[in-house]
Amino acid sequence: MLNFVYFNPTKVYFGKNILDKLPKELSKYGKKVLFVYGQSSIKRIGLYDRIIDLLKDFEIIEHGGVKPNPVLTHTREGIKKAKEHKVDVILAVGGGSVIDEAKAIAIGALSDRDVWDYFEGKAIVEKALPIITVLTMVGTGSEMNSGFVITNEEKKAKFGFRAEPVFPKVSFLDPTLTFTIPPDQTAYGAVDAFTHVSEVYWNKTNPDVDITNGIMESIMKSIVKWSKVAVLEPGNYRARAELMWCSSLALSGITWCGVGGLSLPAHMIEHSLSALYDIAHGAGLAIVTPGWMKYMKEKRKTTLLQFAKNVFSKDSVDEGILAFENWLKEIGCPTRLSEVNIPEKDIPEIAKNAYELAKVWNMAEEYPVETIEEILKLCL
Amino acid sequence: MLNFVYFNPTKVYFGKNILDKLPKELSKYGKKVLFVYGQSSIKRIGLYDRIIDLLKDFEIIEHGGVKPNPVLTHTREGIKKAKEHKVDVILAVGGGSVIDEAKAIAIGALSDRDVWDYFEGKAIVEKALPIITVLTMVGTGSEMNSGFVITNEEKKAKFGFRAEPVFPKVSFLDPTLTFTIPPDQTAYGAVDAFTHVSEVYWNKTNPDVDITNGIMESIMKSIVKWSKVAVLEPGNYRARAELMWCSSLALSGITWCGVGGLSLPAHMIEHSLSALYDIAHGAGLAIVTPGWMKYMKEKRKTTLLQFAKNVFSKDSVDEGILAFENWLKEIGCPTRLSEVNIPEKDIPEIAKNAYELAKVWNMAEEYPVETIEEILKLCL
Repeated sequence: MLNFVYFNPTKVYFGKNILDKLPKELSKYGKKVLFVYGQSSIKRIGLYDRIIDLLKDFEIIEHGGVKPNPVLTHTREGIKKAKEHKVDVILAVGGGSVIDEAKAIAIGALSDRDVWDYFEGKAIVEKALPIITVLTMVGTGSEMNSGFVITNEEKKAKFGFRAEPVFPKVSFLDPTLTFTIPPDQTAYGAVDAFTHVSEVYWNKTNPDVDITNGIMESIMKSIVKWSKVAVLEPGNYRARAELMWCSSLALSGITWCGVGGLSLPAHMIEHSLSALYDIAHGAGLAIVTPGWMKYMKEKRKTTLLQFAKNVFSKDSVDEGILAFENWLKEIGCPTRLSEVNIPEKDIPEIAKNAYELAKVWNMAEEYPVETIEEILKLCL
Repeated sequence: MLNFVYFNPTKVYFGKNILDKLPKELSKYGKKVLFVYGQSSIKRIGLYDRIIDLLKDFEIIEHGGVKPNPVLTHTREGIKKAKEHKVDVILAVGGGSVIDEAKAIAIGALSDRDVWDYFEGKAIVEKALPIITVLTMVGTGSEMNSGFVITNEEKKAKFGFRAEPVFPKVSFLDPTLTFTIPPDQTAYGAVDAFTHVSEVYWNKTNPDVDITNGIMESIMKSIVKWSKVAVLEPGNYRARAELMWCSSLALSGITWCGVGGLSLPAHMIEHSLSALYDIAHGAGLAIVTPGWMKYMKEKRKTTLLQFAKNVFSKDSVDEGILAFENWLKEIGCPTRLSEVNIPEKDIPEIAKNAYELAKVWNMAEEYPVETIEEILKLCL
């Protein structure tokens, strides 16, 4: 077992009708609330009105309109509002994008520097406004970790990092709020959460930690089983609840205790797909991941075999990859570039783009452009 | 999945040579340290000297001599020292008893009331001194939760409760510090940690939460496997590391997410054994637990069968109980009252004593004296 540090101070309220606890938790941090949310979806499901009603004793400063890939200009507007109104606490209601932007605002609100300085490593985050979240999507895990990603439109850079001060103080996870997520988004969220675990599992520095392996396998098996149910029965509480909690645990830190750090090569390559084409992150992962597995059949033989056996009850790496692909197809994901109309001739450009991120993520040595190209060819 | 709250803010440093980080973590809380420890063992293994050396830039107030079942009089002495010297932070170096006493001192040090008032529910804990722990024993899980137990010698009461302010801020878990734990204590610690999970598993209100079941099963399987190694090879790092991390996770809160609260009937009955006779808590658990399982064969059929299948790969409740008993024997635990010379005629008195705790733990309805007697008869 390798040395590790485990730390996750987020308090989670999980279940039905838990939002009743929101005012009490918010009031621990003050009375002026920056209410961060995205587009129209929380209004459509009635959550916006419910929040306004719950916060009737608070002073609310609204900051709606967060984009699916949150951008720096909108983040800076949020910081400006937080400073002007001297808000005490940030309430993020939405999915990973909303929570990510809330984290960046929380840092900028207590700093004299431009917030992008922190993304470029010019300054270290020492403090942030407290953040409380109400989760409406499943997949990123941002509600229970300290990571976040923001896109700087001007510099065309999508950067992210982790900082302890932005762990949400409290996150409210009500599975019924995810009943309206359509089947495709449900599947993509499941794939995102699954690969947050499987990429760690496959790329373990130390593959022999029984307790951590067991936790990872439990998360992956539950996601496979319950994603199939959730795409068919959107209102199945059990399925939504298992997916929601698995997704939060997936990036909570519990899955890399003793097995080495976080390494996400398929995520790295996928970022270029969703950046260059109009496809969802989860769909891109469903395409890249089987290709990565095929390319790594020998190099990651031990962990891929462990995966085949313990997650899909298969006896070989090939059968494991096939079972994984069959699951992706069953929940309605594309598994080939051709299915989303990306032609072979684009591969060099995608690979070049992905290599830029490989450098940022310190993976350039293992993933030179040629390797990324070969992986992408296995995704055709 | 039932509603739940999950919260565990303790930061864990796990592995070899991690104590180097101790001064930096301590200094976040101040310069005056109450150093709480037990008997001679930390001096014998050189840990006392190492701590003194690491803390050369701090003002140390020593509070040694914590008993295996920590007592109120000694706790009050610690509180007096903490107040007199206005200490900033408590450093607990030892096992569960040392950490438990440190938690009670941390509460008393910031209160004008007698600390026992909190045990009797006369006051609510609102604050406590920060606590940092260095763990040297495995089993109780106190290093990563908010619970603790203190014995009031005068009132002959052993009371415990949970309070958020006493979650350790940081816990240092170095498996090499457990190399010198003798085989019997190693086995008893393993049984304690195992039953912290198995009792929750058997008594689940909702037995159908795949992710939480999977986590519990992973912990139990790792403990069974690695306890066998650790009793034979005390210096086996992997075995000590798996046991240590499993034991911390066992009572961290992660095992009862969605399945209902903590219910520990075998622990409840065992408390009377170790209170009335000179036997270790873990040994008592190894005797009571199989008896409880036999008594509950029908009532807890679903979860006991789940246990047999998923932890020991057996197809019936009876085979599961047998496999569990065989494990206990293999690691050197007694599994019958007769093995520790407790005669059948003592059963009524033990049951009467245990029933008092059943009342305190709100289990009196399911466990009247006659039921406890019947369970104990199955332990003969």
